[in-house]
Amino acid sequence: MLHAVIMAGGSGTRFWPLSRRSLPKQFLTLSGERSLIQTAFDRCQPVIPGDQFWVVTNESMISTTAGHLPEIPANHLFPEPCARNTAPCVGLAAMALAAEDPEAIMLVMPADHVIAPIEKFQEAVNAAVKVIEESPEQLVLFGVPPTVPATGFGYIERGQQLSKGVYQVESFREKPDRETAEGYLRSEDFYWNCGIFVWKATTILQELETHQPELSLALNHLKESYGTPTWSDSLNEIFPEMPSVSIDYAVLEHSEQISVVEAPFGWDDVGSWEAMSRLNPQDAAGNTIVGKASLVDSSNSIVRSTDEHLVTLLGMNNCIVVHTPDATLVADRSDENAVRQLVQQLKDQGYDEAL
Amino acid sequence: MLHAVIMAGGSGTRFWPLSRRSLPKQFLTLSGERSLIQTAFDRCQPVIPGDQFWVVTNESMISTTAGHLPEIPANHLFPEPCARNTAPCVGLAAMALAAEDPEAIMLVMPADHVIAPIEKFQEAVNAAVKVIEESPEQLVLFGVPPTVPATGFGYIERGQQLSKGVYQVESFREKPDRETAEGYLRSEDFYWNCGIFVWKATTILQELETHQPELSLALNHLKESYGTPTWSDSLNEIFPEMPSVSIDYAVLEHSEQISVVEAPFGWDDVGSWEAMSRLNPQDAAGNTIVGKASLVDSSNSIVRSTDEHLVTLLGMNNCIVVHTPDATLVADRSDENAVRQLVQQLKDQGYDEAL
Repeated sequence: MLHAVIMAGGSGTRFWPLSRRSLPKQFLTLSGERSLIQTAFDRCQPVIPGDQFWVVTNESMISTTAGHLPEIPANHLFPEPCARNTAPCVGLAAMALAAEDPEAIMLVMPADHVIAPIEKFQEAVNAAVKVIEESPEQLVLFGVPPTVPATGFGYIERGQQLSKGVYQVESFREKPDRETAEGYLRSEDFYWNCGIFVWKATTILQELETHQPELSLALNHLKESYGTPTWSDSLNEIFPEMPSVSIDYAVLEHSEQISVVEAPFGWDDVGSWEAMSRLNPQDAAGNTIVGKASLVDSSNSIVRSTDEHLVTLLGMNNCIVVHTPDATLVADRSDENAVRQLVQQLKDQGYDEAL
Repeated sequence: MLHAVIMAGGSGTRFWPLSRRSLPKQFLTLSGERSLIQTAFDRCQPVIPGDQFWVVTNESMISTTAGHLPEIPANHLFPEPCARNTAPCVGLAAMALAAEDPEAIMLVMPADHVIAPIEKFQEAVNAAVKVIEESPEQLVLFGVPPTVPATGFGYIERGQQLSKGVYQVESFREKPDRETAEGYLRSEDFYWNCGIFVWKATTILQELETHQPELSLALNHLKESYGTPTWSDSLNEIFPEMPSVSIDYAVLEHSEQISVVEAPFGWDDVGSWEAMSRLNPQDAAGNTIVGKASLVDSSNSIVRSTDEHLVTLLGMNNCIVVHTPDATLVADRSDENAVRQLVQQLKDQGYDEAL
């Protein structure tokens, strides 16, 4: 049976002041009406019913997650006592899924990406499931054909074709420089690694045992209390001891049984405010406006307000203005990667109520 | 007896979003604790007691004015039914003052300027009163020695010296171009015309009769009902019929009996947000910050927030950010004169609640 596992452990500092400690990125609505995590749920409908969803998130986010996704059973929401990157997160979900259903196939995806159209996504999911039905030991990745020479993403080099739109993985390439990225774009042998995976729960557990014995031991230890009254205590005791490592580094870069399904959908990792301009239409001057705003002689700017507050720009270019009830960000668009630095400064200056 | 007349008829659009239709500039607190109109009152203390103050303002501003200046008797607050520039305003006050006290000397001043130190101001007032005591027919202007070649002010050219620091007025010069202003600054014969005047009420009424017979007739008509139950009706009927003209154009440019007192105080007409940087200290990067704010890699900017809302700037230079509970302005500092244009656009777009 196919299950969806949503990884929702991020903090989303780069979306300050909309994102906060208590409201990380996956709960934001950056376009349309639904939050990012709701959109992740929606794109699997009707392929995967709500009671086959699982979410791994920080323990402080459990109740907010339940509020956003009431369709998911409460015991499918796993609280991480602390952040430990994606390998422990995937391992935890795989352990539980294998206990519930030894034949379980997991669709693993981040909570805070944007994908469209969902039909293309669902076709890719079906193609990946078909690969696993034929070769149950496979770890299947989704490869998004690049549309620009992006330097901010990891790439997958494809190898031998296995079937239509399915390839062996030849290699992984870290974030390339501009020239290399342009070469990838020209060659057509490279995909963006969008961080979405499909595999059998038992397969990834075996791979973790092979490549991450320490993590695997911890998962086996944790498994003993799964479904018992001591589960919560065990999780709080054992999870923090797990190595903090990504599933890519922990398994994928070492495994011999990896394939990539071509996934020709629009994909955005919504890494920063810059994504607002990709997810929403622009006016004639290139401005992206969400909420109540009025602009004079301003261009190429991103404005995010509310329906209650009027943001006005006069003679501004290439800037980002985000209004929230208790804090406003005004940033040069080319400096937006420094939002983390700003948030650190706010912490240092004691503006805890704004974090 | 010396009376103070505060002209408080401005709309202050250029201080949007802090100033609004219902809260024009004179009620704003741009530095320190007191509003501009309160500061105008304060600078005359203890020279002129509160019950010798008079304010001419729009009728919709009477109750707000009374709230800011409870020291002034209610019947000294004159409501203008509509805006008619400064000559009708001055005429109205002179008519009332002459009725109360035929020897009244009027110190006429705008409600929304900043002057420091007040000792220098009071010395200039005393010097002007002395001129009038010796030559009761004189209209006395205050001339501020220019400190920069300002192109936004009118200038007074001084002529023959009458006594220490007192000169005949040789000519008035409208806002000069930069080169001309630099010549004025070098010559030392030119003062900024700061729009503050001292004269006998009866003198200015005579001058109005000579140079503005239509306005003078209307004032005489109005005088008949002064202090009677029909006063308010008369004012509403007659005032709107008066010509809309400045006292400078109506009288000063034509009169033969004008002198200027050198007024060596710091003076600012607080014409726009730019004044914030002149009225408040700057940080090491040249930023002017009032309210709760945190800046990263930002310089030469003006930030005005409140104690409840955190404004943050990231990589911004030469910009103005003003936060109010329902509206925010983000403007390039070199475009700030276009705030009027922005306010007009808001009107056109139907954002009436923000005006």
